[in-house]
Amino acid sequence: MKIAIAQLNFRIADFEGNLNLMKKAIKEAETNEVDLIVFSELAVCGYPPLDLLEQRDFIDRCMESVDILASCTSKVAVIVGSPVINPNEKGKKLFNAAFLLADQAVKAVRFKTLLPTYDIFDEYRYFEKNIEFETVLFKGVNIALTICEDIWDDQPVENTFARTRLYTDSPMDFLAKQNPDIMINISASPFAANRLNAREEVLKQNVLKYGIPLFYCNQVGANTELIFDGSSMVLRPDGIIADRFTPFAEEVRIYVLEDLMSPLVAGAIDPERNLNEEYRIEMMYKALVFGIKDYFFKMGFQRTVLGLSGGMDSALTLVLAVEALGAENVIAVMMPSRYSSEHSITDSVQLAGNLGVNCRLVPVDPMMDSFLKELNPEFGDLPEDVTEENLQARIRGVILMALANKLNMIVLNTSNKSEAAVGYGTLYGDMNGGLSVLGDVYKTDVYSIARYINRSAEVIPYNILYKAPSAELRPGQKDSDSLPEYDVLDPILYQYIEMKDTLAAIINSGFEREVVEKVITLVNRSEYKRFQTPPILRVSSKAFGMGRRMPIVARY
Amino acid sequence: MKIAIAQLNFRIADFEGNLNLMKKAIKEAETNEVDLIVFSELAVCGYPPLDLLEQRDFIDRCMESVDILASCTSKVAVIVGSPVINPNEKGKKLFNAAFLLADQAVKAVRFKTLLPTYDIFDEYRYFEKNIEFETVLFKGVNIALTICEDIWDDQPVENTFARTRLYTDSPMDFLAKQNPDIMINISASPFAANRLNAREEVLKQNVLKYGIPLFYCNQVGANTELIFDGSSMVLRPDGIIADRFTPFAEEVRIYVLEDLMSPLVAGAIDPERNLNEEYRIEMMYKALVFGIKDYFFKMGFQRTVLGLSGGMDSALTLVLAVEALGAENVIAVMMPSRYSSEHSITDSVQLAGNLGVNCRLVPVDPMMDSFLKELNPEFGDLPEDVTEENLQARIRGVILMALANKLNMIVLNTSNKSEAAVGYGTLYGDMNGGLSVLGDVYKTDVYSIARYINRSAEVIPYNILYKAPSAELRPGQKDSDSLPEYDVLDPILYQYIEMKDTLAAIINSGFEREVVEKVITLVNRSEYKRFQTPPILRVSSKAFGMGRRMPIVARY
Repeated sequence: MKIAIAQLNFRIADFEGNLNLMKKAIKEAETNEVDLIVFSELAVCGYPPLDLLEQRDFIDRCMESVDILASCTSKVAVIVGSPVINPNEKGKKLFNAAFLLADQAVKAVRFKTLLPTYDIFDEYRYFEKNIEFETVLFKGVNIALTICEDIWDDQPVENTFARTRLYTDSPMDFLAKQNPDIMINISASPFAANRLNAREEVLKQNVLKYGIPLFYCNQVGANTELIFDGSSMVLRPDGIIADRFTPFAEEVRIYVLEDLMSPLVAGAIDPERNLNEEYRIEMMYKALVFGIKDYFFKMGFQRTVLGLSGGMDSALTLVLAVEALGAENVIAVMMPSRYSSEHSITDSVQLAGNLGVNCRLVPVDPMMDSFLKELNPEFGDLPEDVTEENLQARIRGVILMALANKLNMIVLNTSNKSEAAVGYGTLYGDMNGGLSVLGDVYKTDVYSIARYINRSAEVIPYNILYKAPSAELRPGQKDSDSLPEYDVLDPILYQYIEMKDTLAAIINSGFEREVVEKVITLVNRSEYKRFQTPPILRVSSKAFGMGRRMPIVARY
Repeated sequence: MKIAIAQLNFRIADFEGNLNLMKKAIKEAETNEVDLIVFSELAVCGYPPLDLLEQRDFIDRCMESVDILASCTSKVAVIVGSPVINPNEKGKKLFNAAFLLADQAVKAVRFKTLLPTYDIFDEYRYFEKNIEFETVLFKGVNIALTICEDIWDDQPVENTFARTRLYTDSPMDFLAKQNPDIMINISASPFAANRLNAREEVLKQNVLKYGIPLFYCNQVGANTELIFDGSSMVLRPDGIIADRFTPFAEEVRIYVLEDLMSPLVAGAIDPERNLNEEYRIEMMYKALVFGIKDYFFKMGFQRTVLGLSGGMDSALTLVLAVEALGAENVIAVMMPSRYSSEHSITDSVQLAGNLGVNCRLVPVDPMMDSFLKELNPEFGDLPEDVTEENLQARIRGVILMALANKLNMIVLNTSNKSEAAVGYGTLYGDMNGGLSVLGDVYKTDVYSIARYINRSAEVIPYNILYKAPSAELRPGQKDSDSLPEYDVLDPILYQYIEMKDTLAAIINSGFEREVVEKVITLVNRSEYKRFQTPPILRVSSKAFGMGRRMPIVARY
């Protein structure tokens, strides 16, 4: 039997486009005499559809898509994910379903049991959980068909207190009693650079526990902040990975089932994977480029504009934007003020030159003078303070938005995760943008990605890479005036945000109490700012945004 | 037996403050020889704590608070809500619990079964559901102790497709088998002006079904966008409401249980409630004032600044701000441009005068000229378009933020729900603010609230009330140039957003297909703007923000 896995980039609510993608893959499968082609979780509507699932029209179109797909199965059978109405009078209105379509009909429907409801996931908001377990028979092959999380029952978690994925029952244990020959799992599992190996570990655990091959089909594509890397896999019954899809790419691959049913020759082991720090940084780089590219494609925009300060964050964002959209589609704007250093201009010009990017200069001082003059009757003799710093940042924000509006572009935000964490940024100023590229990348990783980019040539000028970080909003300002050095700040933030460690645990890792308390307070007190940030490309297991929901008025 | 219900305003994560509130109430109860005092759901930490529940430190402090409260129960017993760790190895890490504390010890703990996971609620994100049911015996009284949603099993829903609250089991049915004498329900149930009677209906249904009195203790207080009105109640076994707490106010009231155990004299009916349109508007007015007041209090700010355009929305926001914070704490800023009508100034001055508010004038044209001059090399000969309109709005946004920064104030946003719905607003311009006051109030309701305010005097000048709505961003502009009239737009929006009706159903209500399609498309296409709006005071059952989660890149 031939099985195809289709790792495709579906668009949310684009029923026609998604159908066309799948029809094309089915045609290709027909040509190659494939028996069964597998599409990912909720493929008909794209993942995550969020509250569109509460609209009756939307569900009707999902059902229509399943019917149309069924009509295409005279030669090749299809496994595809779709929401479906729960026929029971009680419980949530929908199930998250996997359909087996063959001979132009629905042959079987299976529902998802473990509904992720943590971090960015809200599945119990929409779906009732499955409570019945039955394998699916197709051409004599007994298939344990599951959806994403359903094979994640025994997943190890970093922090036992924050565990969110341990359930009271294991769908695969029930299915295993029916002696399946293979497992097929359809998924929509997003990328996280700090958990690169987690998915593979879970797949291996399943294969080793149940002793049968596993076909894992994951969605690829970025939907605003969520980046799905795909990385679909096929595993032999001994845990050896038979095949691995290219991450961040659409691919259809075909397998002869019989070749995968037995272990490889005795003693075979997986080719060693390069999971070192360099690989993590490379994957983060690829994820960010892919995230930008797909956001612009799905929003229907070609061009971007961003501010180039002469600092590291905007330099890296520019490189990523150029890689994603092409130099001809990127405009960099230098907006120096009286506090800008001279090298901020020369370094920016050099970087833009290296990349072949159109670099513009719009000064902010004339607008600054104009605001200060008109506000003078209100400000009177009050001393200069953060107001004037914010004013500069906001004038820059207005300039970028004006250019974006006039020339039909999207502004890319250039703030990093360390800044976003401690509230080191100006609302409606440098926090502007349609998409935040680095909002989930700590400053230390910003440097690592920059060094990765420079691995064979000085793309980012060394001056930018090695100057001390500064917002340049007042004379001689340095980030380290008001923040700990980033190699202290970032690990504290990682423990607090990603690991949800306690104050005591963080101090025990070797940081001064005073510093840790200050950092945590800064994080907690800046929720009101993060509430209004642009969507942030998520590349870790805990990004700011929909995956981290904190009260604004909490008293810390 | 004497039972006290404490309707108090808890602050999220303010363990000490919340304890002090409760201790004070316990003292008062002691003085009045109360046997049992009841506090609301998650009272120790405030509701909703959101992802703070994932922090071990936070849960430890909750447990500490319960212990401290227990130590205060030598005379008066306490029922109080707190999260508690789930001792089981599997399942979510916490339960949402109600503790009975007496004689300086924990006498009983009961867990919440029905975990609201829809709209603004994410309880299954944190809590495991209860599966064991047992009444609580206190001084010979058998109590069916439940938490919020647990008595909402049979709640009628407006739109059967969007139903989210029907469950597979009913906690009260299990408890009823143990012959309870009374029901006590502790809640954190927010205000919604379009469902004013829903809570009372549910309470009555329970009392009529089980034939015993019900003590309903609800949280009061606003936590950023969520406004809890309190409106605690006590019901006799025949469904007659024995007592109703003042909404939007902290109160402790004491009852003699024996007086409530029997029906009133035969034929008694509830005093008629005034649930007409005027009452709805009055309640909305009160909720908004309360929401502003509590936000500033909990953020530790006294003063606000807002832009006064001469239009209806900013006029209403100003009145509400003055009512909430006092005229002396409100600064109104007029920021006319070349496109502003003369009456926009005269009307604003008159309104500010009526309210005794300090009214300032900062012109935007000098900054506008300055931006246009510096951007001229970039804009070249491109025609004027929405860019220049947005520029004006953004200059105003910068002025307000500068004043707020310099004078330690919070900017109040003045956009209404109709605008927010169709994306009629400028990001980083008139969409700025720490809190959106009218973002959940449709334009037609904005007028109704204004007429309510003017019921006995012309507080809001008639000129403002009766002029045609205009953004005044270009000569002669009217809202109706690009939008349907509000008496057509608002009902369409209500059906689409609150009722989640299908396109066909909305057209069937009597609207033109073309208009409905246009409106829905405008709503869908402006998700990217709403992603970055300030928190919006929620006064309906479906506000923009955390309760309505829509994809940005969806293709509609």
